[in-house]
Amino acid sequence: MALYLTESEINKIIDIKIAIDSVEESFRMMANGEAVNKPRERLPLGSTSMNYMSAGIDSANITGLKVYVPNPMGTKFYVHIMNAETGEIISIIEANTLGQFRTGAASGVASKFLANRNSSKVLLVGTGFQSFTQALSIDSIFDLEEIYIYSRSEQNRRNFIDLHQSKFKSKLTQVQNIFDPDDVDIINIITNSKTPVIDEKIVNKGTHINAAGSNHSLRRELDTKTILKANNIFVDDLDQAKKECGDLIYPESLGLIQWRNIINFSDIFRFPKKYSRQTDDITIFESQGLAIWDLVLANKLYTLAKENNLGTSIDV
Amino acid sequence: MALYLTESEINKIIDIKIAIDSVEESFRMMANGEAVNKPRERLPLGSTSMNYMSAGIDSANITGLKVYVPNPMGTKFYVHIMNAETGEIISIIEANTLGQFRTGAASGVASKFLANRNSSKVLLVGTGFQSFTQALSIDSIFDLEEIYIYSRSEQNRRNFIDLHQSKFKSKLTQVQNIFDPDDVDIINIITNSKTPVIDEKIVNKGTHINAAGSNHSLRRELDTKTILKANNIFVDDLDQAKKECGDLIYPESLGLIQWRNIINFSDIFRFPKKYSRQTDDITIFESQGLAIWDLVLANKLYTLAKENNLGTSIDV
Repeated sequence: MALYLTESEINKIIDIKIAIDSVEESFRMMANGEAVNKPRERLPLGSTSMNYMSAGIDSANITGLKVYVPNPMGTKFYVHIMNAETGEIISIIEANTLGQFRTGAASGVASKFLANRNSSKVLLVGTGFQSFTQALSIDSIFDLEEIYIYSRSEQNRRNFIDLHQSKFKSKLTQVQNIFDPDDVDIINIITNSKTPVIDEKIVNKGTHINAAGSNHSLRRELDTKTILKANNIFVDDLDQAKKECGDLIYPESLGLIQWRNIINFSDIFRFPKKYSRQTDDITIFESQGLAIWDLVLANKLYTLAKENNLGTSIDV
Repeated sequence: MALYLTESEINKIIDIKIAIDSVEESFRMMANGEAVNKPRERLPLGSTSMNYMSAGIDSANITGLKVYVPNPMGTKFYVHIMNAETGEIISIIEANTLGQFRTGAASGVASKFLANRNSSKVLLVGTGFQSFTQALSIDSIFDLEEIYIYSRSEQNRRNFIDLHQSKFKSKLTQVQNIFDPDDVDIINIITNSKTPVIDEKIVNKGTHINAAGSNHSLRRELDTKTILKANNIFVDDLDQAKKECGDLIYPESLGLIQWRNIINFSDIFRFPKKYSRQTDDITIFESQGLAIWDLVLANKLYTLAKENNLGTSIDV
């Protein structure tokens, strides 16, 4: 017997706190060797592809797959939780909201450990489906004054603020140009851009950058000068970054950076002193998204759903 | 709404003919570029692993995953069929019997196209869960006189014959030693052996060999002399063979054979003249098992199940 959970059921029980806890717990488990993660595979299909990625948690005796087919009419994501000894299906979860929250939470967790603690100004670049939770997670972790909202379309900037301001502690302010604010502590970018959006000129000393949009080797969000300016560059998973992180693959292919200098984020839990920041450091977190985040969050939501009698039993 | 199919439901509708048709159709679609297949991934979990492999069929607009966790108490296999545009789940199928039939069918299909048409004697090595369908598919394709049954345990040989003789056209005869029969046209081996079982001395001119047991680089069924003696060596998929085919990985690592001389089986449909056999040729089919076989067969069984009102609807 397995439990099927729909988007509307997930929406009743998910919040940014449980997502942030899940992502931080994922990284701590990876650091301790208690969890395992495998990068996305893409099976080519006609004009699209099936994407699937896997993870496992020894202590919880579960394993999982995230599966989805990118679709211009709206992609549907699924997370499957399985028993790690028998392979039996425990739960199938519609995972659009789940994915949105875990991706946002990751930028929050990265900022929590990499940005200056007194950060007060954030620049959010991109106002698509994924960007709300990016800003929300940073807002929930820091005592921010202001989040600058940038996207190319003024309408999108205004809509974002109208729709979401009430959910934020800090003030959302639209900016016409990424060069307008000059006092930013954290830059968070999540776009589908194929060419760099962030120009190194806007990256001041002490800035932390989350680049969360790219999960394809041909997409780039940060220009090479920004990459070269950083004191430390972190990735969610080095194996996945080598396949998908265009921001790093491009300068690495030119010999400008080397993979051995790129840091797995989970290493900050193994070597906290080594990676503690100096106030003026520029740090980058490049995120392609990990199945272990999906699995840890899916498992918490599955437990919550059972407690709240949500979901449809698949009785076979 | 998706359809869940149990082992007992699949057992009502599966037979070796539908499995043979599915495997042949899989190879023809791969040859024509209509189908796509990705090798198995193994996510390490405690003392086991989650195994998953994928395939897609453009014309049917479906994609699929085979998922299982090897378990000493009995592994449960699942095949998921999904819509190739939306990713929505069409069917989840318990796939132990399905897997047993498609693996057996593959040796039948390979023998159909690679062995001499007048083959009359088969040596079956291994009497485990997977071996019955190996013999059954060859029996259904050829007018055989006799199938010699070998495994190390006499009890297992006798049990195999007692249990299965009634389902065969040809006579099943147990042999105490693989050297006993001297007139074998087809050798079919499916074991978990880590060291070679087939000695080149039993491989006469004109013999075709199916080696179906190994799907791990450290397992071997054929000795190196047998590999070197073959005129042509075919694999179900070269990408997967390079990861999993111990029989070939071992001699290749010693420089005794080269991957460029190993033939994707589907190429016999693209270049039939090039790979047509001479009577005295020795041929080998090395099989690790492809997700596209699972998907094609699963899709046929799904259609049959709907026609017969079998299965449980997952109504969400």
